[in-house]
Amino acid sequence: MSNSDNYHQLTRTFQRLSRFSHLSAIASWDMFTMMPPGGSKARGEALAELSVLEHQLLTDANVAKWIAAAQQEDLNDVEQANLREMSRLHHQASLLPESLVEAKSLAGSRCEHAWRSQRPANDWEGFAENLKEVVKYSREEARLRAEAKGCSPYDALLDVFEPEMTSARLDILFADIKSWLPELLNKVVAKQSQQSLIAPTAPFPTAVQRELGLETMAQLGFDFTAGRLDISAHPFCGGVPQDVRITTRYDENELLSALFGVIHETGHARYEQNLPQNWAGQPIALARSTAIHESQSLFFEMQLGRSPAFLKRLIPAVTRHFGDQPAFEESNFIAWNQQVKPGFIRVDADEVSYPAHVILRYEIERALINGDIEVDDIPALWNEKMQAWLGLSTIGNYRNGCMQDIHWTDGGFGYFPSYTLGAMYAAQLFSAANRALPDLNHAIAQGDFSALFDWLRQNIWQHGSRFTTEQLITQATGEPLSSRYFRAHLEARYL
Amino acid sequence: MSNSDNYHQLTRTFQRLSRFSHLSAIASWDMFTMMPPGGSKARGEALAELSVLEHQLLTDANVAKWIAAAQQEDLNDVEQANLREMSRLHHQASLLPESLVEAKSLAGSRCEHAWRSQRPANDWEGFAENLKEVVKYSREEARLRAEAKGCSPYDALLDVFEPEMTSARLDILFADIKSWLPELLNKVVAKQSQQSLIAPTAPFPTAVQRELGLETMAQLGFDFTAGRLDISAHPFCGGVPQDVRITTRYDENELLSALFGVIHETGHARYEQNLPQNWAGQPIALARSTAIHESQSLFFEMQLGRSPAFLKRLIPAVTRHFGDQPAFEESNFIAWNQQVKPGFIRVDADEVSYPAHVILRYEIERALINGDIEVDDIPALWNEKMQAWLGLSTIGNYRNGCMQDIHWTDGGFGYFPSYTLGAMYAAQLFSAANRALPDLNHAIAQGDFSALFDWLRQNIWQHGSRFTTEQLITQATGEPLSSRYFRAHLEARYL
Ligand SMILES: [Zn+2]
Ligand SMILES: [Zn+2]
Repeated sequence: MSNSDNYHQLTRTFQRLSRFSHLSAIASWDMFTMMPPGGSKARGEALAELSVLEHQLLTDANVAKWIAAAQQEDLNDVEQANLREMSRLHHQASLLPESLVEAKSLAGSRCEHAWRSQRPANDWEGFAENLKEVVKYSREEARLRAEAKGCSPYDALLDVFEPEMTSARLDILFADIKSWLPELLNKVVAKQSQQSLIAPTAPFPTAVQRELGLETMAQLGFDFTAGRLDISAHPFCGGVPQDVRITTRYDENELLSALFGVIHETGHARYEQNLPQNWAGQPIALARSTAIHESQSLFFEMQLGRSPAFLKRLIPAVTRHFGDQPAFEESNFIAWNQQVKPGFIRVDADEVSYPAHVILRYEIERALINGDIEVDDIPALWNEKMQAWLGLSTIGNYRNGCMQDIHWTDGGFGYFPSYTLGAMYAAQLFSAANRALPDLNHAIAQGDFSALFDWLRQNIWQHGSRFTTEQLITQATGEPLSSRYFRAHLEARYL
Repeated sequence: MSNSDNYHQLTRTFQRLSRFSHLSAIASWDMFTMMPPGGSKARGEALAELSVLEHQLLTDANVAKWIAAAQQEDLNDVEQANLREMSRLHHQASLLPESLVEAKSLAGSRCEHAWRSQRPANDWEGFAENLKEVVKYSREEARLRAEAKGCSPYDALLDVFEPEMTSARLDILFADIKSWLPELLNKVVAKQSQQSLIAPTAPFPTAVQRELGLETMAQLGFDFTAGRLDISAHPFCGGVPQDVRITTRYDENELLSALFGVIHETGHARYEQNLPQNWAGQPIALARSTAIHESQSLFFEMQLGRSPAFLKRLIPAVTRHFGDQPAFEESNFIAWNQQVKPGFIRVDADEVSYPAHVILRYEIERALINGDIEVDDIPALWNEKMQAWLGLSTIGNYRNGCMQDIHWTDGGFGYFPSYTLGAMYAAQLFSAANRALPDLNHAIAQGDFSALFDWLRQNIWQHGSRFTTEQLITQATGEPLSSRYFRAHLEARYL
């Protein structure tokens, strides 16, 4: 026996798991981009079968035995970090019985599939029936995880997406945001109401929008030999690090809505494409967490993409693709793309009102998972909170209210906070990059992002899951997560 | 214990296997249609991992035990047929060690991937190196199967694609074809050399060709809620019965080459889409064999698609899509699409010279698998046989000679005979349909294919693998496979 035999048994098991994840990632991407409706039931069953298999492999008694024995082996730093991640994944999976994994996967596929037509039909009752099934299994999952971890049910789900994050900590971060955001939002809206902007003239043909998107992805360093851009109703970044699949959707009346979606997903994609390939197949090679993932996409979309320097650079490309328009005059173009307009839809929200959408969902899903409310209570709560935050009524408007997101349809409770955590991380990282790279703004204005991307590669991308989120962000920025950079960013850009 | 417990254990295992096949079918389709080159290695590894898993499940000791016990259980006809197919699949898989399954899958992915660039580069030496690896594993597979079955190595591979088919039987069928085809080919070429045809005027834009393809698929009953049409370098029909993925490729200089590819794949697709859904997931619900599959595609493409009645019906659609042209005059259009022109490329071959391409490959692959020749001998043999059959030299022209097909790249030895078996079955089936449906030709001329498709559904599609090939074809046509219908068809259409 060598002195790391158990560890090496584990690496083989996790490599195998990673190959199965590859297939489920591609089959899931296909489900949202290519699959005709008739394939839905069989696809859901096939994916559920694979998740049961992955669950079996991950919770195998040998894995527990190897993990225990590997703790005593002579491992280097990287191997120890990989073992920590293996152990986390194993323990997370071991808490759930196989029957629950399968039932949850099937209920999620069913609910998501029905939601695709229920949402446009504003069919809350039909949707609620399926959602109750999903919530039932998610609550069961949360209960089992919470018992093992000694925390609240919702915190137990949060931990799956965001290791170390708790609702106690989120409450502090979100309370801070709540203390200044409503006033900031009012001020910005009041200030912008003074502007008279020239609107771009539609239509913006889909094919041309796609060309501009591909060109921008190339400028942002997307590797097209290892990924592609397609269309889906709900944009996402999927696939595997060697083959990253991003999507967007096109509205011929909107100038840059698809493009900013593409820039967002390109941030996710570059993180994936630059994860440590030499550890490929191992848990340490995976992205750190959903919030760190969102920090990369929001870094690209908001910190970089909507900065005046970047927007200025976009003007020649936009003019080349859509012809010259008065709306493309520099100050008008920048102001047009930095508009703050409270609205119903989270994915269309500007970065100032976005936290309202997230905190609202966080409060509702936490109450739902903790058993303080039921599915039937959601529409009224949604309306109440939308009124309070943004002054908008969603009574009877389920489609643009509590039925607008895909997350809950397949049981993704605990994910929403990642968006605002990501926005805070992104602001903190951009501030640190600015300190480290004094010429950054000038370079961006020249279209030279190489130093910025090198900084991200060195500080975030290359580490995969080697460090905890707290270590990663402290090493990169000199301090743990703080909301002050996000606030400073919003104030500097919008006030 | 109920009296079919073992059988029911088997149905659960095979349903699970079918779900994993679903994922590998979609991931394979993606590999040929969507995947960027960087994804190739990881995809190959993921698919190989899944084939190892499927092999493990299929060869599990419990499966052998259940099969033995189920033979004693009280099963109805359908269950007995399903058990026969289960047993066949189990025994076929059990003959191969897991290591060989994995090695063969990896060597095949590698060879196929390299071939994609080696073929255009005419790089025989590079290709031969990979092909030798593939042949090594295929010979090993053939040896193991042959020992168990007590037959020649090549016959053992043939049996995987075409249960009950032997090279002795093929030799008789092909000897018959060889006895009349060369003379027929000469006569047809001589006759057609008298024609002076008006060529259609290119270009034929890809987008318009695609429109015509989709329209024709719809007329031929393709169910778009359960399938799609895409582009790949080498057209195929993949996916799963609930979601059939067909592909074609477009050449803007060719009027109907893509369309006839689409019609061919639509034949495959309708077979898949009409397999018995109530047995879905069970071996009995699978297509009977590769030759029966090809019989359906050739039924659509050749028996129906290139018939004068069908071609006449195409003219208004072609004119609508590409404008009026002198070449679209009825007799010219029909003659243009029934041209017989011996050429280098199998997939572009007309139905008269097609058997030459198949018999040539059959003779070479049989010698190769039986160890009578080596990979290095292929180019010279190819040239010799092409000269003898079609009077064409392939010396130094590997790209349009022995490197033109994808089949051998991933070890698909034993498949090629299916094409000519399929052509013979198609002719025999069309003849039977004509006898059963006296108004058939009139209906086709009216664009009404419903009776024809009902006949195929009742006689072929709905049965899946319930009957052996011999039973299926005898029930449908009144006799076992005969080459005389194919000969009669060619003579009637071309002489
Ligand atoms: Zn995102
Ligand atoms: Zn075919």
